[in-house]
Amino acid sequence: MSLLVTGSIGIDTVTTPHGSADEVLGGSAVYFCFAASYFTKPRLVCAVGEDFPEGFRKTLESRDIDLAGLEIRKGSKTFRWQGKYVGDMNEAETVGVDLNILTEANAKVPAEFADSKIVFLAATHPTAQREFLEQTPGCKLSVADTRDLWIDNEHDELIKTLGVVDGVIINDGEARQLTGKVNLIEAAEGLLAMGPKFAVVKKGEHGALLLTQSGPTVIPAYPTKNVKDPTGAGDSFAGGMLGYLAETVDITDEALRRAIVRGTVVASITIEDFSLNRIGVATKDEVDQRIAEFVKMLRVE
Amino acid sequence: MSLLVTGSIGIDTVTTPHGSADEVLGGSAVYFCFAASYFTKPRLVCAVGEDFPEGFRKTLESRDIDLAGLEIRKGSKTFRWQGKYVGDMNEAETVGVDLNILTEANAKVPAEFADSKIVFLAATHPTAQREFLEQTPGCKLSVADTRDLWIDNEHDELIKTLGVVDGVIINDGEARQLTGKVNLIEAAEGLLAMGPKFAVVKKGEHGALLLTQSGPTVIPAYPTKNVKDPTGAGDSFAGGMLGYLAETVDITDEALRRAIVRGTVVASITIEDFSLNRIGVATKDEVDQRIAEFVKMLRVE
Repeated sequence: MSLLVTGSIGIDTVTTPHGSADEVLGGSAVYFCFAASYFTKPRLVCAVGEDFPEGFRKTLESRDIDLAGLEIRKGSKTFRWQGKYVGDMNEAETVGVDLNILTEANAKVPAEFADSKIVFLAATHPTAQREFLEQTPGCKLSVADTRDLWIDNEHDELIKTLGVVDGVIINDGEARQLTGKVNLIEAAEGLLAMGPKFAVVKKGEHGALLLTQSGPTVIPAYPTKNVKDPTGAGDSFAGGMLGYLAETVDITDEALRRAIVRGTVVASITIEDFSLNRIGVATKDEVDQRIAEFVKMLRVE
Repeated sequence: MSLLVTGSIGIDTVTTPHGSADEVLGGSAVYFCFAASYFTKPRLVCAVGEDFPEGFRKTLESRDIDLAGLEIRKGSKTFRWQGKYVGDMNEAETVGVDLNILTEANAKVPAEFADSKIVFLAATHPTAQREFLEQTPGCKLSVADTRDLWIDNEHDELIKTLGVVDGVIINDGEARQLTGKVNLIEAAEGLLAMGPKFAVVKKGEHGALLLTQSGPTVIPAYPTKNVKDPTGAGDSFAGGMLGYLAETVDITDEALRRAIVRGTVVASITIEDFSLNRIGVATKDEVDQRIAEFVKMLRVE
């Protein structure tokens, strides 16, 4: 099935206890596409400014990603984010942000993408998320992410978006903030009560919780001691998950569980270096090998 | 194999967001024995004061636990603990503590227990842990827990104890404190460097990490939304784990992984009510059913 993603492309500056990266390629849609491309050829819809470096464009082109929805907008500037991770690196601290093009009109979904069967709406204004969805009438499985900003400031619009999507993938803090429930199963139940048929709560280094009508499943994170930069982990998780589902015929609960294992593994690769340094070079064989190892690790009598 | 536990028996007063329990039976050795007794008949070594309620003694006698090492000491008072859990209940706050008998001489291991094959040394003074071990010359597998108090105040003695035990089971905060490593795999590696052949790092609601020479394994916590009181979760985990191992012939890495799944499940039952209210009534069938469900949940292709 065709997989479309809408989200951000950014120029990131990141500091972690293991070093820093200045003005590197980042953004939710980029990590998502790199992760998904291990399993399928994702379709990207996003706008960047005319300052978008040629080298970054080449990096995107080097991967098996359909860039027909990438708009390079004259007179606009690309989104920039400066962030910092400290201690256990479980949460990013935003040091600075230049929204730039994110305050303008969103990119349009090209006509050739309107038949996309799976649509991932990375965290952005919830009204914009629904507008993207309206441009993909062929969609069979829509999944949204969101973040604290929209939960705080656009609560009613977010509830409307959650009322029309099939699935939601958000982190634990946001799930608690949105539902008012501390226990994560109760928080996930609160998310399902808003409309989606499944909810995935991402717990960073502690893995993920999936809730469907048939109950909860928990998957730990792949154990790695080589964590240099968690930026993009959540979007890589979603990309690996939905990339895998795009090549799956029946989206059953069992398929969702297999997909979460894939998302977990790809995220574990992303965080082993800054920006796309690691996920940009890891081979499909390497990913498959780690999936096999992880599946074996979870198999207990 | 015979399983012996040394640890505390206490009279607990606990408050959580879901209620409170006043002057109830608690203590590491009690939770451990209740948990282990689903799999084997554990041997308890512990001293209580003459104030130890007759009803608590009957509760212990009602379970398949060998109480030959339970000393009721004239003129002494039983250990008492008052604790509080807030928010996500991942950490207990000690509101008050009356060490009482814990400041006196330790109970002796009865001669009939000297042949115990597996010995669990619940958190207590690290010198006392080694003294217990010297009284069990038949021990084939010794496992120690510890806590912040001993890491801070008796570091050198603790290092000596870790130098003579086969395994260590401690929580994530303590593993980090003891090794100075934030990443839990690195922390577990630090523990193995101190002597033990395996280390289990307990992560509360996030499950547990096992490290052996052949690498790390992570197991999530059993997902339950019915968490009333986390008191005793860690000791129930250790009890379920070692109780299972006591009935296992070959203690391989694979057996350790199966044991951790058992420990995880029994701990998930303990926390569903205050004190022993839940683990005191859950049947073996109920435990076996939850183990089967959990094993199935972790099985992904």
